[in-house]
Amino acid sequence: MYSLYEMADSGNCYKVRLLMNQLDIDYERIATDILQGESRTDEFLALNPNGKVPLLVLPNGKPLAESNAMLCFLGLGSPFIPDDGYQQALMLQWLFFEQYSHEPFIATNRFWIHLAGTADQHATQIAANHGKGMAALKVMNQHLKNNQYFTGGDFYGIADIALYAYTHVAHQGNYDLSGFTAIEDWLARVEGQPRHIPITA
Amino acid sequence: MYSLYEMADSGNCYKVRLLMNQLDIDYERIATDILQGESRTDEFLALNPNGKVPLLVLPNGKPLAESNAMLCFLGLGSPFIPDDGYQQALMLQWLFFEQYSHEPFIATNRFWIHLAGTADQHATQIAANHGKGMAALKVMNQHLKNNQYFTGGDFYGIADIALYAYTHVAHQGNYDLSGFTAIEDWLARVEGQPRHIPITA
Repeated sequence: MYSLYEMADSGNCYKVRLLMNQLDIDYERIATDILQGESRTDEFLALNPNGKVPLLVLPNGKPLAESNAMLCFLGLGSPFIPDDGYQQALMLQWLFFEQYSHEPFIATNRFWIHLAGTADQHATQIAANHGKGMAALKVMNQHLKNNQYFTGGDFYGIADIALYAYTHVAHQGNYDLSGFTAIEDWLARVEGQPRHIPITA
Repeated sequence: MYSLYEMADSGNCYKVRLLMNQLDIDYERIATDILQGESRTDEFLALNPNGKVPLLVLPNGKPLAESNAMLCFLGLGSPFIPDDGYQQALMLQWLFFEQYSHEPFIATNRFWIHLAGTADQHATQIAANHGKGMAALKVMNQHLKNNQYFTGGDFYGIADIALYAYTHVAHQGNYDLSGFTAIEDWLARVEGQPRHIPITA
């Protein structure tokens, strides 16, 4: 069985749980509270020297870090990854966009404001991040005006799961999505997929 | 023929040029100076709404953004991507590590200090980034004590190319690699690969 070291509130961890549920993969959850330093113990660092959750341990005992690498690995050969080479490249494009241009600003502000309760001491960074997060949302909204999902056309897959994770809770980082109607429509389409589960599940 | 919109000094652009040279893929270079706003023109934004280089245009005219997505796409079916599913997952793990835990700190400090000449006005961010960049180098060095390359064992591939790009010029962002002997040995191994080209080529 797979083991997922994770923190329930983390969008990066939720991504992996959502895909595993949609693929009907059995796994155990190992609660790892990063606010209590549980991703910095010697035991955890032996599995992931980068000290971050999620961390997936495969049935054969081998570890894998980085949420989007897990989505690619778990989704291999499933209907959540496209067959076409260019569509696969676009899927990866959006996965890297998510980790470079989206998550560091949207997830980080949510973490400080909503989870850690340290908005005051990070006020300058939150303000600087906000503009960059809004720019990422604008790029997403523009794409979604002409596409039902991220990999193109009506293909729902891991790029949507990755971008959904922190976009649907962006308001917890003080992002207002009301101007991004194409994003709001896409959020509803993702939530309407079979075997969808909320982040609180 | 492929077209690569790029800035010569950018490590993200160099990654793609290095792989294309090692795969003997013919392409044209289209110089795009981000310091002059050339990645923010209407013409460029039509190709990449995220306004970043590199941007690859395929022989069929379709665009692809995100340097590491390009490495995956161009490397598909070549000896630079492993056949084994778990090794592919580790390759992706390191590609996401590079974009999330390495590039934002090491490349960004190099950009401000070495390319833009704005070190003074970004002094606070440079100091904050430095510790995070050193942490990434420590993770790399630890891995390289037991592995010749990043995807495991003696397999040289796109994860090495991605991490080489900004690590070998980290000193231009005031990172001192002299304590990381496993990294220094790996840099030399990468430079010894057939058809290696320097960032200045």
